[in-house]
Amino acid sequence: MSQTIVLFGAGRSATRFIRFVQEKSEANRWTLVIADRDEALLKEKKADHHRTETVVFSLDDDVLRQRLIQRASLVVSMVPAHLHVVIAKDCLQYEVNLLTASYVSEEMQSLNDEVERKGLLFLNEMGVDPGIDHLSAMKMLDELRREGAEIHGFESFTGGLPAPGLEDNPWQYIFSWNPRNVVLAGAGGAVKFRQEGRYKYIPYHQLFRRTEFMNIPKYGRFEGYPNRDSLRYRSTYGLQDVPTIFRGTLRRPGFCRAWDVFVKLGMTDDSYYIENTHDLTHRQFVNMFLAYHPSDIIELKLMHYLNIPQDSDLMEKLEWIGLFSDEPIGLDRGTPAQLLEKLLMKKWHMKSTDRDMIVMYHKVDYQLNNQHFTLNSSMVYEGKSAKETAMSDTVGLPLALGAELMLSGKIKQTGVRLPVTEDIYTPMLKGLSEYGINFSEEVIEKK
Amino acid sequence: MSQTIVLFGAGRSATRFIRFVQEKSEANRWTLVIADRDEALLKEKKADHHRTETVVFSLDDDVLRQRLIQRASLVVSMVPAHLHVVIAKDCLQYEVNLLTASYVSEEMQSLNDEVERKGLLFLNEMGVDPGIDHLSAMKMLDELRREGAEIHGFESFTGGLPAPGLEDNPWQYIFSWNPRNVVLAGAGGAVKFRQEGRYKYIPYHQLFRRTEFMNIPKYGRFEGYPNRDSLRYRSTYGLQDVPTIFRGTLRRPGFCRAWDVFVKLGMTDDSYYIENTHDLTHRQFVNMFLAYHPSDIIELKLMHYLNIPQDSDLMEKLEWIGLFSDEPIGLDRGTPAQLLEKLLMKKWHMKSTDRDMIVMYHKVDYQLNNQHFTLNSSMVYEGKSAKETAMSDTVGLPLALGAELMLSGKIKQTGVRLPVTEDIYTPMLKGLSEYGINFSEEVIEKK
Repeated sequence: MSQTIVLFGAGRSATRFIRFVQEKSEANRWTLVIADRDEALLKEKKADHHRTETVVFSLDDDVLRQRLIQRASLVVSMVPAHLHVVIAKDCLQYEVNLLTASYVSEEMQSLNDEVERKGLLFLNEMGVDPGIDHLSAMKMLDELRREGAEIHGFESFTGGLPAPGLEDNPWQYIFSWNPRNVVLAGAGGAVKFRQEGRYKYIPYHQLFRRTEFMNIPKYGRFEGYPNRDSLRYRSTYGLQDVPTIFRGTLRRPGFCRAWDVFVKLGMTDDSYYIENTHDLTHRQFVNMFLAYHPSDIIELKLMHYLNIPQDSDLMEKLEWIGLFSDEPIGLDRGTPAQLLEKLLMKKWHMKSTDRDMIVMYHKVDYQLNNQHFTLNSSMVYEGKSAKETAMSDTVGLPLALGAELMLSGKIKQTGVRLPVTEDIYTPMLKGLSEYGINFSEEVIEKK
Repeated sequence: MSQTIVLFGAGRSATRFIRFVQEKSEANRWTLVIADRDEALLKEKKADHHRTETVVFSLDDDVLRQRLIQRASLVVSMVPAHLHVVIAKDCLQYEVNLLTASYVSEEMQSLNDEVERKGLLFLNEMGVDPGIDHLSAMKMLDELRREGAEIHGFESFTGGLPAPGLEDNPWQYIFSWNPRNVVLAGAGGAVKFRQEGRYKYIPYHQLFRRTEFMNIPKYGRFEGYPNRDSLRYRSTYGLQDVPTIFRGTLRRPGFCRAWDVFVKLGMTDDSYYIENTHDLTHRQFVNMFLAYHPSDIIELKLMHYLNIPQDSDLMEKLEWIGLFSDEPIGLDRGTPAQLLEKLLMKKWHMKSTDRDMIVMYHKVDYQLNNQHFTLNSSMVYEGKSAKETAMSDTVGLPLALGAELMLSGKIKQTGVRLPVTEDIYTPMLKGLSEYGINFSEEVIEKK
């Protein structure tokens, strides 16, 4: 029986997904239909593949959207997250399964009863983070629980970073992902988590000073800053009563302390527009956040204001990124966050010779037979090139393997779901492993 | 001809207004109608005065509200600021002048054309701040401009503080005003001002570290932290091209640095509810914002986290306010800001023996005949008792004098207005002076 996969959105992360489906389309008798508003992008992504069709398409074209969904055996939505629900409602109407890599929104969740009643599956959070983190964490936690372990703490970190070898970048950072999301990371509100049974809250402006360090075999040292809300993972992972639960983002050591300078100055604020940005230089932009002084230079005022020692490597990072340069930013109108993004892009954009990597790290503290253990599990996946990035592979591959699994008919569950059950994580992790996405684990006995 | 003043809202700040109107009602043939939802309060405020009527009243009672407004020669609205516009629309319909002590909202401003067309006056910002600040600043600025001075800088500060003599309070602060507004002060967004021709922006979390000091004759030293948006006063005061414009709030020196501890910890956040607040002690509340440590005590963690020297008087302030006490906060559910307010109220509520004061300070830098000068103008008004506070007098008196002025028919302007013109500030400042609200000025030649 031939099956039709309809993909909405052909952006960067779709590359690996499309290639996977095309490679397997003959054997599986799949037809791939790619719908996107960008005709040139569609042509590039089709790559003259004979079982691939492309459709120039705008999401507000109800007729075309519904016609495409009626044809589908499975719909994969890679449009911006807040637009999934338009597609989801059509999938409900025409009774087609849906797959996304995005967090389940409240609106998506509200469809659950109807999705179940119709015997459909809307599987979400099937990218890297969220996605591979769920798969790997749940396998580990379920195994430990089956052995009779009592789990005391769960910490999980993911980061998109440059692959090793970028020696002349003191931040050890490039934008392998949407720069705006990086600039605004954490700005949505206070961070909430639990540590040793106590609720902990961190305001945004202290986020990058509350880091943890960890070592990952062969890749060295990293630091992690907390993600916004770790508490909601308690129910997802069956860890309601666990004393410590913490999720974070990985960076190379020193990044967070330097990023904190932007936060402390107020440069990541996206709530107002700066006056007179035309011709504004990097240096003048910094000075807007420093007190007036008739003679002190900006570097001096900054060091004094934020208590930075003159010989700190922090100043090297700030100079390298061009914070004190007399070059115009080059944006006619912008919020502080938009101006900062523009400034950072000049040094952090991915060059054609750059490669990225995805790093994931879980740490579980547990008790088994009256002994205490720590299980560290880590995964590093390096991108092949500036086009075949680790970011797009680790989003595209789980989606592709997930599509194959859903079309195979082997998943029996229905409703609006996340990939946290064995029927999903076992075949998914096996499939990911064949593509080089592997976790290595070590168990350390405590004391 | 007899005139009827209808007052909506009989709260704390209305006390002085009501007494003034009652004292002058015989001579001016005024009838005062006080409308409020609180019957006991109305009885107290009426004080058996024979030319005062009271009406138990809810703002959503359209019929009663409109009947009252139809009777009025002047409406004075002291309801919460966001509710003025309901009353303003009725005033438009029945063609009655309106007086308030609140900032002009966009909604209020949008009525301007119609108010002008009907020849009415809706006079706003007639309290202390905004109010007395406008009157005194505009008189000073107009006089200087008439002399031919070129104005380079304008700074203006107001504060509500305890009157001198509160020796055992290391913060030199009590709540003489709505405590919630004090806790949330500045939290609305970044601060914007101009200094020496440069735009300056300060994020909320740095606000209380960017203070200025000043001395006020006989009252000593104060510090000022910046108010949210100074830039909008450029047009109000005719200072469009002035290189420096800054407005701030006054506290006693050391207050801001200690308050900054609450901000830095995240305790002034009003955007989420804390988990498990039942029985939460002051000390446990603080610990929610500090990293976990198996043995370090909370005081030590706090000093380390915020870089506070052990012998700093900051720790004395924090201990005095009870931040480290084992007492329960006593609020079953609350945001960090609500819990902090509850905690602070225990020490900062106004006791029956407490007196407050209002302090106002303007500083104008100008050039005249090729010489540079600084003009300092200051006003301190002390409250008579915990009932007759400086706060309620300095809000109630300008409103009362403003009502007298409006009813006299001497103001010819129409529209939605602020008290920034000579026809208003001259008689108003003269009137205020008779009630002990006086500014003293000194001019210093620079260099």
